Amino acid sequence: MTLSNSLADLHLDDSIQLELSNGILRLWLNRPESRNAMSLAMVKAIQQVFTAIQDDQSIRAVVIRGKGGHFCAGGDIKDMSQLCGEAMNIGSNQPYVDFNRQFGAMLEQVDQAPQTVVAVLEGVVLGGGFGLVCVSDVALSLANAKLGLPETGLGIIPAQIAPFVVKRIGLTQARRLALLGNRFDGHAALQYGVIHEVVEHEAALELSLSLVIKQIKRTAPHASRVTKALLHQTLTEPLKTLLDDAAQHFADAVSSSEGIEGTLAFVQKRDPNWMDEEK
Amino acid sequence: MTLSNSLADLHLDDSIQLELSNGILRLWLNRPESRNAMSLAMVKAIQQVFTAIQDDQSIRAVVIRGKGGHFCAGGDIKDMSQLCGEAMNIGSNQPYVDFNRQFGAMLEQVDQAPQTVVAVLEGVVLGGGFGLVCVSDVALSLANAKLGLPETGLGIIPAQIAPFVVKRIGLTQARRLALLGNRFDGHAALQYGVIHEVVEHEAALELSLSLVIKQIKRTAPHASRVTKALLHQTLTEPLKTLLDDAAQHFADAVSSSEGIEGTLAFVQKRDPNWMDEEK
Amino acid sequence: MTLSNSLADLHLDDSIQLELSNGILRLWLNRPESRNAMSLAMVKAIQQVFTAIQDDQSIRAVVIRGKGGHFCAGGDIKDMSQLCGEAMNIGSNQPYVDFNRQFGAMLEQVDQAPQTVVAVLEGVVLGGGFGLVCVSDVALSLANAKLGLPETGLGIIPAQIAPFVVKRIGLTQARRLALLGNRFDGHAALQYGVIHEVVEHEAALELSLSLVIKQIKRTAPHASRVTKALLHQTLTEPLKTLLDDAAQHFADAVSSSEGIEGTLAFVQKRDPNWMDEEK
Repeated sequence: MTLSNSLADLHLDDSIQLELSNGILRLWLNRPESRNAMSLAMVKAIQQVFTAIQDDQSIRAVVIRGKGGHFCAGGDIKDMSQLCGEAMNIGSNQPYVDFNRQFGAMLEQVDQAPQTVVAVLEGVVLGGGFGLVCVSDVALSLANAKLGLPETGLGIIPAQIAPFVVKRIGLTQARRLALLGNRFDGHAALQYGVIHEVVEHEAALELSLSLVIKQIKRTAPHASRVTKALLHQTLTEPLKTLLDDAAQHFADAVSSSEGIEGTLAFVQKRDPNWMDEEK
Repeated sequence: MTLSNSLADLHLDDSIQLELSNGILRLWLNRPESRNAMSLAMVKAIQQVFTAIQDDQSIRAVVIRGKGGHFCAGGDIKDMSQLCGEAMNIGSNQPYVDFNRQFGAMLEQVDQAPQTVVAVLEGVVLGGGFGLVCVSDVALSLANAKLGLPETGLGIIPAQIAPFVVKRIGLTQARRLALLGNRFDGHAALQYGVIHEVVEHEAALELSLSLVIKQIKRTAPHASRVTKALLHQTLTEPLKTLLDDAAQHFADAVSSSEGIEGTLAFVQKRDPNWMDEEK
Repeated sequence: MTLSNSLADLHLDDSIQLELSNGILRLWLNRPESRNAMSLAMVKAIQQVFTAIQDDQSIRAVVIRGKGGHFCAGGDIKDMSQLCGEAMNIGSNQPYVDFNRQFGAMLEQVDQAPQTVVAVLEGVVLGGGFGLVCVSDVALSLANAKLGLPETGLGIIPAQIAPFVVKRIGLTQARRLALLGNRFDGHAALQYGVIHEVVEHEAALELSLSLVIKQIKRTAPHASRVTKALLHQTLTEPLKTLLDDAAQHFADAVSSSEGIEGTLAFVQKRDPNWMDEEK
């Protein structure tokens, strides 16, 4: 398999693996020996990927999942003990600060990625792994996945994750999960609003994912990007400014080649041409 | 049937129909030949109605539904092709901008209307129709209704709708629905938080609506208005200012004729007089 | 039973009752003759308690519930008639303003309390009682509890409660409940997002509560406080500032005695020492 131009020059370590096929980039967390614990190297590799594909409209979606039957067990304990050494050497906890902050920068980048981001959950989905789910556009899970925010039980805090958890599921659910630290399964995750769909078996998970990908390919590449950015802006911009800007974006979209093709395809009851392009 | 003073002077085109009875205004979207596609004329007619009744406390609720078995199929494609002509003539996409922005102004007005707004859903509830549901206070739906945000599949964007969708169901559900463009039924709409109640049959829908209307009539006209405004303010005002203002509103309400009558009726275990007034 | 140092000097009237055991403070609303209607005295007593324990890390949780089979019937009607007399005497509704505002100050204080606050619901949970539930971290309810926001039906408004209700369940559910004023049971409360768990019987309620308490005791005292404050901050602070501050808090937590003990206990597969301390 050849990666696209936007990815061809990347030099990634093997903490993640990439597969690109028909406009869908599969990003595998690839540290199965530690249940894909999120090392600093993995965080930076994820950021490299999303930076590289930022302007690549040929990549419609990024599917994030874990190798070896688990999504992600959270932060990497080996990184932590190395940081501990560094901190003692320099007599400052700045190494922890930098390490932790990098994780938040990654979450923010994935959250705002122009592609549609799909998270597929199996096994453990804890701490930082839980945070990564919270910045996906679509999250599917096996019913027997084990999710949770175990930080307070370890004497630490879900620091970079907290804002993304509250944005995902609201304060009412977030405060309980973070303050109890309990684990819960895929059905509960659906009820709390963490994920969008729960299935019982592996085969059903693959089927659901393929349907989601099919839906994504039905949407227009540029319109999707603009829409995702707009949805995020609704949380920070005043309503009137937002509606003014959105009207301009609407006019641009309608008069664009995508808008013209989409409307024509609708009237002619045929698939729009962006579906063919990506087959 | 005679419309009240506040509505008597309105000159509306027939894209909507009004019925006023016992303080409940029924506003029918009335373009059944196009599944009540929302034309610019319809948008403006809805705004005229809400402007006219703004200060009319005798009208307690506005029930919005569609003629012909559908709620609303979204934006009107005929309007769009006319706008296309205009845009080409003047060499600018400003006609699209103005058209789109008007729709957002209408949604904002309905969202903030002092009356309690009830949306009753059947058939298709797409795009702009979906947006209109998002600004209702109570939404009831038949189970087999078909809801969705199809814009990105047409190469365009849910521009004016986006902020109201996020406000309605949160970013987590909104990003999936807008980026997949999939249709879903009334049961899913309840789960996503779009609507408040789903029923299987027409008769059950009418029954639910009559119970909602009965509940609305039990509430005090002025207290309802103040409460609705207050709920909206909680999203934009700082907490302390809000609580200071709210305490003033509370004191005003308690000492008002409504507050005195309400408390008295409660102690005397009888219906308050505003229920009789509106029979 | 002896209260801890932080509570020993409190002189409370008997509108509430306190029990402290193994780091868990039980705060009983204790006006069973009026279904624990919330008097001004009760509001002030609750505030006194939360002020006294503010810095007491030995108290891990506050469990709020009502004596006599009801949680709380809302504001106290006797207080209201006394305020009415005062207002007439001085020719101003300021007594109502002050009374109402005090209630909001109490809700804000409980919302921000560093301890984990658990609300246990039975019987009626109306108006102000409903507001109190909305500021808990964990809410458990009997299925046959009766919840509601009856204010608009009484000619008054849910003034101080409104912001906490919207923060709890979002505008979509809040606008319907406040504008219909209807009562609903524990199952509906779970669906609307008011509570976290509903059970059918008294025995199941006690069991759920004991499990919640067990979970709370597994979490580290200081990490819990910092986490709770952080979750609240996510709603008001800009993301980047928040993530910067959170990284600092993370570094402090990791290098603290709690963080070191928590990580060590995890690696050694034993309970952390804060669990023993509180037995």
